[in-house]
Amino acid sequence: MKPVHVVGVGMTRFGRLEQSITELAVEASLEALKDSETLDSRFDRLIIASQNPDEFTGIGHLSTLMADRLGFVPSGATRIETGPSSGSSAFEVAVAIVGAGMADLVIVIGVEKMSEVDGRSASRILSKMMSQESETRYGATPAALAAMVARRYMHDYGLTRDELSLVPMKAHRNGAKNPLAHFQKEVTIEKVNSSPIVADPLTLYDCSPVSDGAASIVVASERIVEESGLRDRSVQVLGIGHATDHHAVQHRLSLTSLNATVQAVREATKMAGISPTEVDVFELHDAFSILEIINMEDVGIAPRGSAIELIKEGVTDVDGDLPVNPSGGLKSRGHPTGATGVAQIRDVVLQLRGAAPKGIQVESPETALTHNIGGFGNNMVVTILKKGS
Amino acid sequence: MKPVHVVGVGMTRFGRLEQSITELAVEASLEALKDSETLDSRFDRLIIASQNPDEFTGIGHLSTLMADRLGFVPSGATRIETGPSSGSSAFEVAVAIVGAGMADLVIVIGVEKMSEVDGRSASRILSKMMSQESETRYGATPAALAAMVARRYMHDYGLTRDELSLVPMKAHRNGAKNPLAHFQKEVTIEKVNSSPIVADPLTLYDCSPVSDGAASIVVASERIVEESGLRDRSVQVLGIGHATDHHAVQHRLSLTSLNATVQAVREATKMAGISPTEVDVFELHDAFSILEIINMEDVGIAPRGSAIELIKEGVTDVDGDLPVNPSGGLKSRGHPTGATGVAQIRDVVLQLRGAAPKGIQVESPETALTHNIGGFGNNMVVTILKKGS
Repeated sequence: MKPVHVVGVGMTRFGRLEQSITELAVEASLEALKDSETLDSRFDRLIIASQNPDEFTGIGHLSTLMADRLGFVPSGATRIETGPSSGSSAFEVAVAIVGAGMADLVIVIGVEKMSEVDGRSASRILSKMMSQESETRYGATPAALAAMVARRYMHDYGLTRDELSLVPMKAHRNGAKNPLAHFQKEVTIEKVNSSPIVADPLTLYDCSPVSDGAASIVVASERIVEESGLRDRSVQVLGIGHATDHHAVQHRLSLTSLNATVQAVREATKMAGISPTEVDVFELHDAFSILEIINMEDVGIAPRGSAIELIKEGVTDVDGDLPVNPSGGLKSRGHPTGATGVAQIRDVVLQLRGAAPKGIQVESPETALTHNIGGFGNNMVVTILKKGS
Repeated sequence: MKPVHVVGVGMTRFGRLEQSITELAVEASLEALKDSETLDSRFDRLIIASQNPDEFTGIGHLSTLMADRLGFVPSGATRIETGPSSGSSAFEVAVAIVGAGMADLVIVIGVEKMSEVDGRSASRILSKMMSQESETRYGATPAALAAMVARRYMHDYGLTRDELSLVPMKAHRNGAKNPLAHFQKEVTIEKVNSSPIVADPLTLYDCSPVSDGAASIVVASERIVEESGLRDRSVQVLGIGHATDHHAVQHRLSLTSLNATVQAVREATKMAGISPTEVDVFELHDAFSILEIINMEDVGIAPRGSAIELIKEGVTDVDGDLPVNPSGGLKSRGHPTGATGVAQIRDVVLQLRGAAPKGIQVESPETALTHNIGGFGNNMVVTILKKGS
């Protein structure tokens, strides 16, 4: 594969926002274009990730709509959907297109506008990604499945409620310093434990919110990086992995490990030629607090059953050896589903440039790993990125 | 880019079918797998095209669902959507992934199950691909836009109603010999002219139907073709082009030419190194009869305003010099939107193998071109394929 680089990033505030889906996508994209200094270049392709714009907003055919709005016509435009991992699946497609030499310059946009429908409708729309035969017909929701996973993990490894609360506390501690995060306030253990139960044992603070937002990345070939003089601030794609697991949770071998993560990490690290513990900063898909714990173990930075020890010891704090979700993660940064994977990559690109917000910049990271979940734990994309030089 | 081949194809009957969306996708895929003799191989990726399964069927996250159903877990799986050109956009992504060397074996599936909703709902769902601001809010539908285009073309070039009827007549003449076509009967000029008006001047027989169906293609690297001994029946991807036009028809330079076709053909022919008139067989996106005429001119096989002369002279018949839509096209084969682009490629692969149904096999074609439209004429994918040897 030819070398592939990220040369520009942009992101809107995440939260419950006034802007329309197209306005959000335009705002993030214009920032990425400005950041990459490629405003005058011809983009060969536009790749947009959105889980379900048709039902969340009534607007379809987002690929062409955005190519038109951004002035990219006649460049080819494609929408990618793999549930909440749509953002990094879109990045994977951009990497393939540039890696094959089919294009030199590709813009990736991730966007979701979820707050136009009420909470009940949002849950109904999101639940379509689950198994109808084995899950939704019995009233299961993503939160209900996460609760079942948390119960099993607690049973198997002795994790306590107070320990689990450390995950959202860390998320909010980091997110409080992220000016684009949906929630920018710290929370106490009492607050987490006493907030309303969503699905026992998970409370409101164990669950990522329904958010609006967009993020964007400019992906470029070696030629563009060479000609543009952007090498100093470019970030190289070292590895990418994409794997699935059985659609329904009940068909999987384990409740406390997501095998698709293990497989995607294997593929990405093999391509990158480094091991997970060598990576300097991580963004892991913590749609529910219990998932951050399981992800750490599946990614391979914590032994099975012991991720909570690393969290307690501060190893995953911003100033720890293995910083996880300095952005605040999905819990605090927010989770506009189609945008999340793109936002993760945007955030680690800023980390690698040393340009993350004050208080959440990791010290001189050289490599980063993002991990994005689609469905309930069955469609994972993992990327490994390296600082340019 | 590394060489990319098609080594297997499959397709269900198109029409109003009993099977569910997953049953259709499985049927087409199993046929493609059997055809490619790769049933025991590990597929690296599954790419599925579907315009709007969530709203047409209530089933989402089709990528993982199909990876599970087909036994491809843990291979990565991705859904692609560009409106009715989703099928060939999915093929483009598969070509990029294999072309980059990220995978050796990729299955592409195109599927749409449209008949679970009533006709009015289907029209509402499909119309989301149009511009809300400039089109749907004024009550426009795809058929209404096509009628406007037809009126303008008739005004500019003197095309008559009787002449336009030759297009669906040819489609049905070919489709009558295609055992998988939605409609398998010939129609007379009286039948076309006297059928109900959908949008004046277009009658029912000028419009492709709402169909259910699936098609599938196995895409493979040079290594697989070499090792499998499938070279004799493999088809090579010579070129691929993807382009957009302004979202709303009113913002385009012309009503009687779709510029995205011109751009996509330019890109595909440049990559393939051949000119359109050198191609031996064509599948062009005739969602409405007037589009076959315009497509012929935009693709570059008929001078502007004169496509109808070629049709009259039989040049685009199965035994003509430039056979267009020997399958029956969207009009007669049917148009399950996400499946159409994949079905077009499947059909020309059979043509290049000399394995098309009796009566619609073109004589010894060496090269083929497919042209697939997304939105109302604003997201085009063109592929050029060559017989293996």
